[in-house]
Amino acid sequence: MGTTQLETVPEPKYWHLKTVLSEALDSEFSVGEILPNERDLAARFGVARATLRQALEQLELEGRLQRRRGVGTTVAPPRVGVAVGTEQQAWPGSAGDDWQTVDCAVAVPPAAVADALETGREQPVHIVRRSRVTHGQPVAAELLYVPETSVPELSAIGTPSGAARARAVLRELQRLELDSRENAVELGSARADDAKELDRLPGAPVLVVTTRYLAGGRTAALSVATYRADTCRLTFGDSGAVEIHEGPERQAS
Amino acid sequence: MGTTQLETVPEPKYWHLKTVLSEALDSEFSVGEILPNERDLAARFGVARATLRQALEQLELEGRLQRRRGVGTTVAPPRVGVAVGTEQQAWPGSAGDDWQTVDCAVAVPPAAVADALETGREQPVHIVRRSRVTHGQPVAAELLYVPETSVPELSAIGTPSGAARARAVLRELQRLELDSRENAVELGSARADDAKELDRLPGAPVLVVTTRYLAGGRTAALSVATYRADTCRLTFGDSGAVEIHEGPERQAS
Repeated sequence: MGTTQLETVPEPKYWHLKTVLSEALDSEFSVGEILPNERDLAARFGVARATLRQALEQLELEGRLQRRRGVGTTVAPPRVGVAVGTEQQAWPGSAGDDWQTVDCAVAVPPAAVADALETGREQPVHIVRRSRVTHGQPVAAELLYVPETSVPELSAIGTPSGAARARAVLRELQRLELDSRENAVELGSARADDAKELDRLPGAPVLVVTTRYLAGGRTAALSVATYRADTCRLTFGDSGAVEIHEGPERQAS
Repeated sequence: MGTTQLETVPEPKYWHLKTVLSEALDSEFSVGEILPNERDLAARFGVARATLRQALEQLELEGRLQRRRGVGTTVAPPRVGVAVGTEQQAWPGSAGDDWQTVDCAVAVPPAAVADALETGREQPVHIVRRSRVTHGQPVAAELLYVPETSVPELSAIGTPSGAARARAVLRELQRLELDSRENAVELGSARADDAKELDRLPGAPVLVVTTRYLAGGRTAALSVATYRADTCRLTFGDSGAVEIHEGPERQAS
């Protein structure tokens, strides 16, 4: 992860090895197959184990390999395309939404979230926790921040807490007329609670999608969703189906 | 990057340290400031240097720190929002596009690209190389694959090669009526040539944006753009301005 002065840095050994390994994965291995152990692989390719490990890390970053404790290193299936930018005009929790509502709390959000919501840094907001499962696999964990001013009728309904309360917040939110949605994607590392939900270790690379829901000229809700970076490819657009990977996920168009 | 059996794995030490360090960055350091060396930091927080290094890696992944050879570790400026999904109806190279056309070649694309373009695996295509600079910083390197059938008049124009040829390919492409654009984002590692252009080392984490340009019911061109994951936040949506970070980049709405 170092940087600068690239002119004087030759292409690292593991980089060439990665290319060779990648070709071997294509031609000799099938999805789910367990790779030989590191000692055997290092011997076969005539490299030091440290070099081999760096190449394996790269291939894991690219979603080609999965490493699991007690199982070893296996050839990963193609990444799953997960639509993020479709249904531009839908509130969270609308019909057809494949998120599951988990829980709800009232708490002071992180300072950056409070600033985006313009609620003031000490002001508690509703925090709805949701999770997304695609093809039986957990792919994302979300915190949805909803200021009290976006759901003014909520207290009158009086559902106590938990998932039922969360659904009540979403129902109230859907009463507002949604103007537009804006998404941003960036690299992050999984927080401890998200990591547990996504079956990853804390600190694993994740794709963080921030969505701002605009209604009545202001930010009515803000979603921060953490996607598994190893298994997901996030798609944006009308059909949400960009598939350039080979294998069972590929669709003829 | 390990996984599974999270129930039995306690929160790692570096994770707690990361949180503490992050708070220290907020309260004690300003953007661009150089952090104390690893020995001093490890002593201050009472941790082993290996633990400290893991926490620093996490903070680098999250874009909070930058590590540079010969400089040390500095506090990173907020990530730059780079619009990716705006101007849904525009071809690459249209007016207002902030990409620079670098070069052009005719070559057989990777198999997955050929499949997406439905050109056949041995069929050469035009490969236009472009780069994107935002706020004076290189943020992305792109390979745009254009089948010969999308630019049938091109050979008659006869520009020899290089950037002029690349611009001719883009001009011809713009004659087609664009139906829609689809984007996908996934985690990747920088290829050697992209890394050099982006001032990163090969293998650095990057965000790979694949864009399919649809015209006349087929894929008329396919773009694979590699964005720096350390400095960029990719934005999608009409205004393309989701800013939840504090600091000079933040915009009042």
